[in-house]
Amino acid sequence: MPERPEPPAIAVIFTSRFGADTEGYDRMAARMEALAAEQDGFLGMDSARGPDGLGITVSYWRDEEAVRAWKRNVEHVAAQELGRARWYAEYSVRVARLLRVYDWSAEATGPGG
Amino acid sequence: MPERPEPPAIAVIFTSRFGADTEGYDRMAARMEALAAEQDGFLGMDSARGPDGLGITVSYWRDEEAVRAWKRNVEHVAAQELGRARWYAEYSVRVARLLRVYDWSAEATGPGG
Repeated sequence: MPERPEPPAIAVIFTSRFGADTEGYDRMAARMEALAAEQDGFLGMDSARGPDGLGITVSYWRDEEAVRAWKRNVEHVAAQELGRARWYAEYSVRVARLLRVYDWSAEATGPGG
Repeated sequence: MPERPEPPAIAVIFTSRFGADTEGYDRMAARMEALAAEQDGFLGMDSARGPDGLGITVSYWRDEEAVRAWKRNVEHVAAQELGRARWYAEYSVRVARLLRVYDWSAEATGPGG
């Protein structure tokens, strides 16, 4: 899980459902994750996709300007177009501002904690 | 994917990583989803867990009071305790306020859209 993003960071919640064709998706997704990590203001990303084809990726950004710059990134724009043309049946993007965060880990807490 | 939650709704982003023991988890998770859906102010929920054991659940709520009431729900509190004792190696809870949303679907757009 990413470094702890602190308020008032921005979370971009990308929820998607696959269509029938998923060929090439994993490679594109890995490339986008690497590219996002190079952007100014990127704070971290979590991604999960279940066997039902529903995927959730949450990326965290320092501020709205960093989100806008990532949205406009030329290679990212091309990946979005490819995603609509090829892989996704539907998706939603939800941009939200962090209000508070809590973290917990078994390791930090210790047995019985 | 849930009904479109509109700003200024609250998103609760729950990211978790499993430990070794996952027995009983699916049943608890299904019960919590059903219970959440009964709560006043619940707007929807998306959930995905990949083969690496990283899971993301995002639930959407009308306002902060609805989030607080859900956090205090007695059965939910018990499930959280069980989760820490049994299933999770680590987790984070990130509470955020929606700023804007975009939805896209192949069906609504049509071929070539």
